[in-house]
Amino acid sequence: MHEEPEVAVLRYGHRPGRDDRMTTHVGLTARALGADRVILPDNAGQSKETVEDITGRFGGPFGVELTDALNAFIRNWEGVVVHLTMYGERVQDVEEDVRAVHEETPILIVVGGEKVPFEVYEHADYNVGVTNQPHSEVAGLAVFLDRLFDGRELDREWENADRKVIPKATGKKVVEPGADGGASDADATEDA
Amino acid sequence: MHEEPEVAVLRYGHRPGRDDRMTTHVGLTARALGADRVILPDNAGQSKETVEDITGRFGGPFGVELTDALNAFIRNWEGVVVHLTMYGERVQDVEEDVRAVHEETPILIVVGGEKVPFEVYEHADYNVGVTNQPHSEVAGLAVFLDRLFDGRELDREWENADRKVIPKATGKKVVEPGADGGASDADATEDA
Repeated sequence: MHEEPEVAVLRYGHRPGRDDRMTTHVGLTARALGADRVILPDNAGQSKETVEDITGRFGGPFGVELTDALNAFIRNWEGVVVHLTMYGERVQDVEEDVRAVHEETPILIVVGGEKVPFEVYEHADYNVGVTNQPHSEVAGLAVFLDRLFDGRELDREWENADRKVIPKATGKKVVEPGADGGASDADATEDA
Repeated sequence: MHEEPEVAVLRYGHRPGRDDRMTTHVGLTARALGADRVILPDNAGQSKETVEDITGRFGGPFGVELTDALNAFIRNWEGVVVHLTMYGERVQDVEEDVRAVHEETPILIVVGGEKVPFEVYEHADYNVGVTNQPHSEVAGLAVFLDRLFDGRELDREWENADRKVIPKATGKKVVEPGADGGASDADATEDA
């Protein structure tokens, strides 16, 4: 987030078709929960488009890139590499260390698909398990980011959005940011 | 979790094929992050099987049910209903209230698919947004559970598991629970 060392998320592996929604959700979760950019495998162009579309409408800054060299990207990262895996150290045991490191150093968070090669485990500075149970790479990423930023990401402001959701106890309210309310409100309760 | 009022997760809506993995991930995330059971639409039988299979191998207790009456299930819930939606109140504003309520009262967390009818918004005691940005119902559920349980879910013990992952800085280690180590260790580094 702003004025902090960068946090990037790398999605390791993507099977077009089968993984489209999971990869898209990794990208959207990275954006919504405070990462600065996401790096996707080069066969995930459709997910890239979706995440860019959301960024265009709901604001940024947030970067989306494709790479054909996942391993090289990890190897060449100038900072700390955190690999999220159910086999790793417990997040509650390492998060304080990682938060301290992040005060000075960019962090790359690697989020696996089905098969992550052993060299990723070896190259990672931290292999971290958000529980040591099988669940969801999207869930693991979400909890990790929330803990890395200690909740600050929830107060993030968005730039260049053309719409903004106003929190509401019941129903839906969407406005144009910067508008003074009134006629520019688009109360979307009709589809609620 | 044990000795606390129940937390159940209801997946609202499921499109077979398209939603299979998302619904499965909702179920697995509910299990891994401290909920007691998940309720799925009755056309999500495949996700039910997957979650039950994981519970059989990695332990429980955790319940999986199908229902053909999502709205009635919500209406008849004897406790508090929390509906996760990007249009809702900010999680950081309501989580303290919800935690206090949960000390005495079972909670049903409703996790939407694409189209949640307005009556769910109306019936919910809390409509809650984990950010007011579009991202992932799996990510929202994960952050909400982690905050509801205040991290306690990460220390949960599992019963009747036939395998257990031992946290490890590098590589993979899986053992049979209750075994005294040694020959029963199944060090799974071969596929890391």
